[in-house]
Amino acid sequence: MGLPLVPKKVRSCITVKHEIARGMLAEMAGIFVLVLFVDGGLAGGIVSGWISGTPVSTAFSSGMGVAFGIYTGLAVSGGHVNPAITVGLASVGKFPWRRVPLWILAQLIGAFCGASVVFGIYYQSIDALDGGNRTVFGPTGTGGIFCTYPQEYFGMGPGFVEQIINTGLLLHCTLMFFDERNGKPTKGMEPFFVGLSVAVIILAWGHNAGAPMNPARDLAGRLLTWLAGYGAEVWVPRGVHWWWIPTLVPPLGGIVGANFYYLFVELHHPAEDGDGEGVAEELRQIQNEDVKLVDLKVGVQSNGE
Amino acid sequence: MGLPLVPKKVRSCITVKHEIARGMLAEMAGIFVLVLFVDGGLAGGIVSGWISGTPVSTAFSSGMGVAFGIYTGLAVSGGHVNPAITVGLASVGKFPWRRVPLWILAQLIGAFCGASVVFGIYYQSIDALDGGNRTVFGPTGTGGIFCTYPQEYFGMGPGFVEQIINTGLLLHCTLMFFDERNGKPTKGMEPFFVGLSVAVIILAWGHNAGAPMNPARDLAGRLLTWLAGYGAEVWVPRGVHWWWIPTLVPPLGGIVGANFYYLFVELHHPAEDGDGEGVAEELRQIQNEDVKLVDLKVGVQSNGE
Amino acid sequence: MGLPLVPKKVRSCITVKHEIARGMLAEMAGIFVLVLFVDGGLAGGIVSGWISGTPVSTAFSSGMGVAFGIYTGLAVSGGHVNPAITVGLASVGKFPWRRVPLWILAQLIGAFCGASVVFGIYYQSIDALDGGNRTVFGPTGTGGIFCTYPQEYFGMGPGFVEQIINTGLLLHCTLMFFDERNGKPTKGMEPFFVGLSVAVIILAWGHNAGAPMNPARDLAGRLLTWLAGYGAEVWVPRGVHWWWIPTLVPPLGGIVGANFYYLFVELHHPAEDGDGEGVAEELRQIQNEDVKLVDLKVGVQSNGE
Amino acid sequence: MGLPLVPKKVRSCITVKHEIARGMLAEMAGIFVLVLFVDGGLAGGIVSGWISGTPVSTAFSSGMGVAFGIYTGLAVSGGHVNPAITVGLASVGKFPWRRVPLWILAQLIGAFCGASVVFGIYYQSIDALDGGNRTVFGPTGTGGIFCTYPQEYFGMGPGFVEQIINTGLLLHCTLMFFDERNGKPTKGMEPFFVGLSVAVIILAWGHNAGAPMNPARDLAGRLLTWLAGYGAEVWVPRGVHWWWIPTLVPPLGGIVGANFYYLFVELHHPAEDGDGEGVAEELRQIQNEDVKLVDLKVGVQSNGE
Repeated sequence: MGLPLVPKKVRSCITVKHEIARGMLAEMAGIFVLVLFVDGGLAGGIVSGWISGTPVSTAFSSGMGVAFGIYTGLAVSGGHVNPAITVGLASVGKFPWRRVPLWILAQLIGAFCGASVVFGIYYQSIDALDGGNRTVFGPTGTGGIFCTYPQEYFGMGPGFVEQIINTGLLLHCTLMFFDERNGKPTKGMEPFFVGLSVAVIILAWGHNAGAPMNPARDLAGRLLTWLAGYGAEVWVPRGVHWWWIPTLVPPLGGIVGANFYYLFVELHHPAEDGDGEGVAEELRQIQNEDVKLVDLKVGVQSNGE
Repeated sequence: MGLPLVPKKVRSCITVKHEIARGMLAEMAGIFVLVLFVDGGLAGGIVSGWISGTPVSTAFSSGMGVAFGIYTGLAVSGGHVNPAITVGLASVGKFPWRRVPLWILAQLIGAFCGASVVFGIYYQSIDALDGGNRTVFGPTGTGGIFCTYPQEYFGMGPGFVEQIINTGLLLHCTLMFFDERNGKPTKGMEPFFVGLSVAVIILAWGHNAGAPMNPARDLAGRLLTWLAGYGAEVWVPRGVHWWWIPTLVPPLGGIVGANFYYLFVELHHPAEDGDGEGVAEELRQIQNEDVKLVDLKVGVQSNGE
Repeated sequence: MGLPLVPKKVRSCITVKHEIARGMLAEMAGIFVLVLFVDGGLAGGIVSGWISGTPVSTAFSSGMGVAFGIYTGLAVSGGHVNPAITVGLASVGKFPWRRVPLWILAQLIGAFCGASVVFGIYYQSIDALDGGNRTVFGPTGTGGIFCTYPQEYFGMGPGFVEQIINTGLLLHCTLMFFDERNGKPTKGMEPFFVGLSVAVIILAWGHNAGAPMNPARDLAGRLLTWLAGYGAEVWVPRGVHWWWIPTLVPPLGGIVGANFYYLFVELHHPAEDGDGEGVAEELRQIQNEDVKLVDLKVGVQSNGE
Repeated sequence: MGLPLVPKKVRSCITVKHEIARGMLAEMAGIFVLVLFVDGGLAGGIVSGWISGTPVSTAFSSGMGVAFGIYTGLAVSGGHVNPAITVGLASVGKFPWRRVPLWILAQLIGAFCGASVVFGIYYQSIDALDGGNRTVFGPTGTGGIFCTYPQEYFGMGPGFVEQIINTGLLLHCTLMFFDERNGKPTKGMEPFFVGLSVAVIILAWGHNAGAPMNPARDLAGRLLTWLAGYGAEVWVPRGVHWWWIPTLVPPLGGIVGANFYYLFVELHHPAEDGDGEGVAEELRQIQNEDVKLVDLKVGVQSNGE
């Protein structure tokens, strides 16, 4: 009945052996799962008038959705499921730059599929709320299910800085949770802690502009709602050209946050192998050689040892 | 005073040595505990007018109830406590098909006992609410304690698809949390994470139709309330023949979710033993031989090592 | 400045070397900490009109308070911090009966000290609420900070059974979380999970009668409030002789729950040492010999290995 | 692009090799992150009228902010990120007194930077609330974002004692979570549990006076708001000279709590190395020698083993 029980020949045909393709498949599946949880949690809160979910519970469900997305592909693709993490890791030599566009492409595809499923299943609920007249804001507005929008008073300057801080904190926490030379969480708990940090970042910084942090999830949701008839307001909410803030600033924030952790902590770890350079030197080589993916990924864990 | 202190002879008489019977006992105890937590949490919320519990807190108590149910029998029966998990695991060769009916039978018995205890203890509270006139819906309705019902606007089509998605996510997460070749959670934390994923699935997908996911708990509760005088509405809420959706669709969703994880991640793990097949081949054999249960179960853990 | 820095001679004088005395000290400190968290959490909720805390958050703070109390003395006294756990463990041969009264005595003393500190610090807040006129119930009632009371409609029969179920679930979970032959939580996480199960038991079963579970905390708080002028209603709320239910039934429930886990799971674990008896036989001997405490306690962990 | 990729020569220039300087950098970064989470969480709650955050959720976000701050520098500086922890550890010989002022200095600088960033980003939100007229209390008061204030009825006497209890519980929990000779949490989870204890202390003891516990975060925020035009009320709220309570009492409470755990549990651990003194003797030596920081810190973990 299940796939593992079909003849060996058939299974062999569909097995992907190329590590980049495997990684892209895992990223796609991971962010698909992430979006089902994140957007689903927001949908449950918004269409129920914040009864089946609250602003606080959606922070929690979003964070755990990120954790589950990371677990999906952790030992395969590194479990980034977020372009800002991919770019941030690359900026400190923990992921090869040349793979960045491929990972982001996979993330965009997976996120768009996830958002479409959420929209399809919540279609009737949204109809029951707005009578078919889709709007981003207002009492029957459901734009916030699929991507982030700023509060009315919030300007683009603070918005820009806030997205640097948000995603910077995410990358700082991610690097710290996987830093084998620091007092990191128990092996196997790192993705949970990354998800937890996402939940707390949303609680602390989500009020003004939703704490996007993930351009793939945000852009895919924005595109979907635009195609689904929410109008141009998804790109230009209340007349402000906001869309590029949650799309382009998080990767920048990721670079800032990754280098913040590097500059304040990781750089100064005592060298263990004599040359005073150790890991950093090795990381630089990653950029120059076509090393195996399995050596690159942050957080690969051999729990089965 | 306690059982371990009665004479050895007496204890020997009641010790179950057959592994299938042991497994069924553990499943029965596990789902009994699960239902005490899940239905108890919903009862506390509903009879108190959502004060002693909220829609969000019941998602949490349900998830943790699932985790505690899994821990009950993890190393004995695999700790499925849910027919959808039993069927989903069988579909990817991780549990023998021929044991599936026995596990489901044990789950149904345990769930019915659990629901009966909840009904018995909350009898006075329910009376205090509805004055003895049991109803499923409405301001004094208490049907939602024991099984799931859809919102008025929610059709059977989306209901069918949503149950595939919900239970699919559950099986995807379950397989991923126990996949020794991926970056899985720390040994011993897997049941906690399965419970956490249940909590988040309910937050994200519980608004429309309650995110049943567990046909044993749902069917047992539906049967009990029907016998207890809630009327035919438990089977046909608001005139819709809904009852089979939470009963028959979750196992289907379990098969879909298990194969989703298999297709996107597990199938492509690099072979470790040369033949490019490894685990999959071994799993197929499980279906053909009467192997020991201890080799089959997902997640057996030797923490005492 | 601190104690470890005083001369060796002085420290030697106050060092307790007798293991029973050490155990009692640890139980006393553990339940003192437990009560500071549990009663403090309820006080914060009640005196703020459920704003600084909610019924849901107090379930959580109570559960975590139990966890922190257990951690306090886990490797010293077994970290029971609850007479029902002490009695339940003894009933399945995991703690010697002759030490039970000493442990309970230490628990009562620690709990009374803890309740006194909470009362002292919250004195002004309670005054600000009730103007000095202490009452158990009503809009300015604060009796619920220190011990449990039933809802008006809740009879003694269901109350009796519910206390069996509540404390039974607690002991079932405790034994299961520490059972080295089952798929138990990661070493070091067991007290956290016991606390988590307490939180969920309160969510699921706290609405009718507060889910006491801990007679030491309950009786100490009842005594304190009686001495502090809350009147005879603390013993006989609304004219019902309720006080013995949360005092005497939890230990009974502990015995039932411990034997439930034993009967459905632990008894049937395959024997590892040939005689089909293994642990059970060994446990019986505990009752007959004056074995070292360090061999008895559930859950001693050598994390430092 | 990132720092690790700049030429080796440049990186060498900015690498800090002196362990005290490295420790101060890590403390600075750790408390900076802590304040971004703690103050950010309170800001989200307060400026949204407790919708984007609630009193309960801010207890949680504060606790997790503390955990993330500790992880930042755990293996570098000990991850204190709180003068009360620094002083408390020193009082039981687990940190050298002579480094205490340096650690506190780093904490004050980091906390002030963090509070400034929160103030900068939330500037528009605070303006939207109070129209530019900064106040500590009242419906548009935002003083509570940056430091703690007592309730109107709460006197200085109970305030003094409460701060002893709060911070005492924090140090008791911290020592217990890192005590290798007790049944401590799994390696790598200790900072999470310290954060969890902070969350529950706030739930249990935050109602009367906010459960400050951290003088660096409190004093830095108070200074910042005073400079930012909140007026003298930040020092003397409602005419009471309150400011020194959250500034000077927590370190005292830290000493009390650390010695409470020492006196009731740690002192009585059986000696493992024959002289009946063991760790205590060794700890005393720490005060007399210039031992390496790496040997002192509580909770250094070699997860990478």
